[in-house]
Amino acid sequence: MITLSSDFGSPYPAAMKGVILDRTDARLVDVAHDFPRQDVRTTAFWLREVLPTFPPAVHLVVVDPGVGTDRAALVVRAGDHALVGPDNGVLVPAARRLAGEGAELEAFAIESDAASATFHGRDVFAPAAAAVHEVGTDAIESLDGYEPVDDIESLTFPEPAVDDGTANGEILVVDGFGNAVTNVPGTVLDGRFGEAIELDGESVRVERSYAHVEPGERLVTVGSHENVELAVNQGRGAEAFGVGVGDDVVLTR
Amino acid sequence: MITLSSDFGSPYPAAMKGVILDRTDARLVDVAHDFPRQDVRTTAFWLREVLPTFPPAVHLVVVDPGVGTDRAALVVRAGDHALVGPDNGVLVPAARRLAGEGAELEAFAIESDAASATFHGRDVFAPAAAAVHEVGTDAIESLDGYEPVDDIESLTFPEPAVDDGTANGEILVVDGFGNAVTNVPGTVLDGRFGEAIELDGESVRVERSYAHVEPGERLVTVGSHENVELAVNQGRGAEAFGVGVGDDVVLTR
Amino acid sequence: MITLSSDFGSPYPAAMKGVILDRTDARLVDVAHDFPRQDVRTTAFWLREVLPTFPPAVHLVVVDPGVGTDRAALVVRAGDHALVGPDNGVLVPAARRLAGEGAELEAFAIESDAASATFHGRDVFAPAAAAVHEVGTDAIESLDGYEPVDDIESLTFPEPAVDDGTANGEILVVDGFGNAVTNVPGTVLDGRFGEAIELDGESVRVERSYAHVEPGERLVTVGSHENVELAVNQGRGAEAFGVGVGDDVVLTR
Repeated sequence: MITLSSDFGSPYPAAMKGVILDRTDARLVDVAHDFPRQDVRTTAFWLREVLPTFPPAVHLVVVDPGVGTDRAALVVRAGDHALVGPDNGVLVPAARRLAGEGAELEAFAIESDAASATFHGRDVFAPAAAAVHEVGTDAIESLDGYEPVDDIESLTFPEPAVDDGTANGEILVVDGFGNAVTNVPGTVLDGRFGEAIELDGESVRVERSYAHVEPGERLVTVGSHENVELAVNQGRGAEAFGVGVGDDVVLTR
Repeated sequence: MITLSSDFGSPYPAAMKGVILDRTDARLVDVAHDFPRQDVRTTAFWLREVLPTFPPAVHLVVVDPGVGTDRAALVVRAGDHALVGPDNGVLVPAARRLAGEGAELEAFAIESDAASATFHGRDVFAPAAAAVHEVGTDAIESLDGYEPVDDIESLTFPEPAVDDGTANGEILVVDGFGNAVTNVPGTVLDGRFGEAIELDGESVRVERSYAHVEPGERLVTVGSHENVELAVNQGRGAEAFGVGVGDDVVLTR
Repeated sequence: MITLSSDFGSPYPAAMKGVILDRTDARLVDVAHDFPRQDVRTTAFWLREVLPTFPPAVHLVVVDPGVGTDRAALVVRAGDHALVGPDNGVLVPAARRLAGEGAELEAFAIESDAASATFHGRDVFAPAAAAVHEVGTDAIESLDGYEPVDDIESLTFPEPAVDDGTANGEILVVDGFGNAVTNVPGTVLDGRFGEAIELDGESVRVERSYAHVEPGERLVTVGSHENVELAVNQGRGAEAFGVGVGDDVVLTR
């Protein structure tokens, strides 16, 4: 199985699929191809959340503002999974979660003389994903031109500061529904569903899910990422709370 | 085979796919993930039109404004097909059509203690679709925690009033091309292609298809749903006729 | 394997998939369903670029402004590939490239009495793609109602005029990133990366890829189609250069 993620929109992802299917008989599963263009950080967040739902697979990821420069092309082995993409951090949060707490990531740089300098998705990463799929995640070492590397770009998300009464965090992403996902663990809400909490000094209801408030009403909830989310029932939380990615949030019980 | 339908946009559908593929080796086919958000009615219309083209399958459907409330999670058996989704009516028109005229729908409520209260697509419905795929549509009864239920939410579309000279109907949906699909059966046009009909008191040409009028010109035609549609050749009928979902239309021959 | 391309958006492509899977056990791969509506020319360009990455396949293509008129429905054999779609030129540039330099295209007209006059994707082309997949590209002749035709609609892209110092070309498409793709072969840049060239009388840097200039800065590069592209690092070239499809460009070394 090979999953595909990119910021390519359409129809460039199909060229990657053609290249892969010309080389190996893999099941292909699209994760998304509408990640925000050149937004390594947002893509890295989503991959960390979504890829661990999959059984062992090769994950092809191309959000690559540095295409055609000397940034390396990588395969990262993380447990039973392999991730293939540019060395700009986009693979790292997902790889860490797939490898499991404390486990080592093993990275390999891919040598290639790509046909193009502008579409490594088709000319470098898709062939690499096919090659890793063919030999298996255990046998990346057996591939010619795949050399172990120690030092790859990192990418981390900010940690919230949580004490007894207050959590200082920030907005990590806004999802397609408009829910503003913070980095504050949902456990700080302490199951106080139906009660109120202070968010940036204003009182907001805490609820188990959206429809526990009226349509259009704001709420604070625990999202599917197990983090605190700012939401509106049948509306867009980010707009209603006036927040965007990177904004600070202060929750006070 | 498992088909997937939702209003999730991207990348949440990929989490459902990961969960399914981690449990069963099904072929996955996306129906759509851009159904209008929380719009149970429009989604139900499209599923009724599209799902019957498929061979026997499990159809996973998540348009679920009531996620995390006490609305039930359902599996509905309809002939050789099974539909999995929330008990809000979204499954019903498709299930009735798949079961065939007069056939019984058999519904089962799914017990679960979901990990999240906000993403039952990943935590309840995807595992259920995988489970039904594993045992087969015939054997839903064999699954633990799947209990028959008699009383599920219904959802019906309005019937037009058709007499000899006049049809009173309404707009059911506007498709991506801008065609306004009515609930009036195409048979009322009586094959009068090339002639005119009165629509809300104005004369409009009836044509077999779009390109029988000039680009930009309005027409009335029989769409692929076998209903009367208001259209514009290479343009958007809904805007040109000034109609939207739920608006009345009167056709007079 | 059957690939699918259309301007249908969503959810109409799923009806084509249902029809195919009801008839044959093909692997389905989406190329794109968001080709610009009724834009035969742009779709033809992309198919020419993308379909040759695939191993032998049946390619179903439905961008069909003339649906329901007397335009023919075609299967075109091009080497080991078959293309299925309307006789409006959309298949031709891809078919020529798949068949290879100088090779003959063999076209067959499909007889059908379609259920609808407005959705031949579902009622004519999807069944045809399934039928060709079943018998194999070598055996199209064996299908009832598939008659050889000699005279199909053509579609060609304009050729640039290139001499020693100047290339006169035009913009063929603008891709999703905003890159304006010309018909001028990248070889005219003669590998002068890091130098300047005159574009419509203004000096612009030539670079191997986007990130060789600052974010927001304009460049001329060789895109993945091996043609000259007008681009902006992390921005939209078409807007920055003020060009659109069909506009002339003059490159002077």
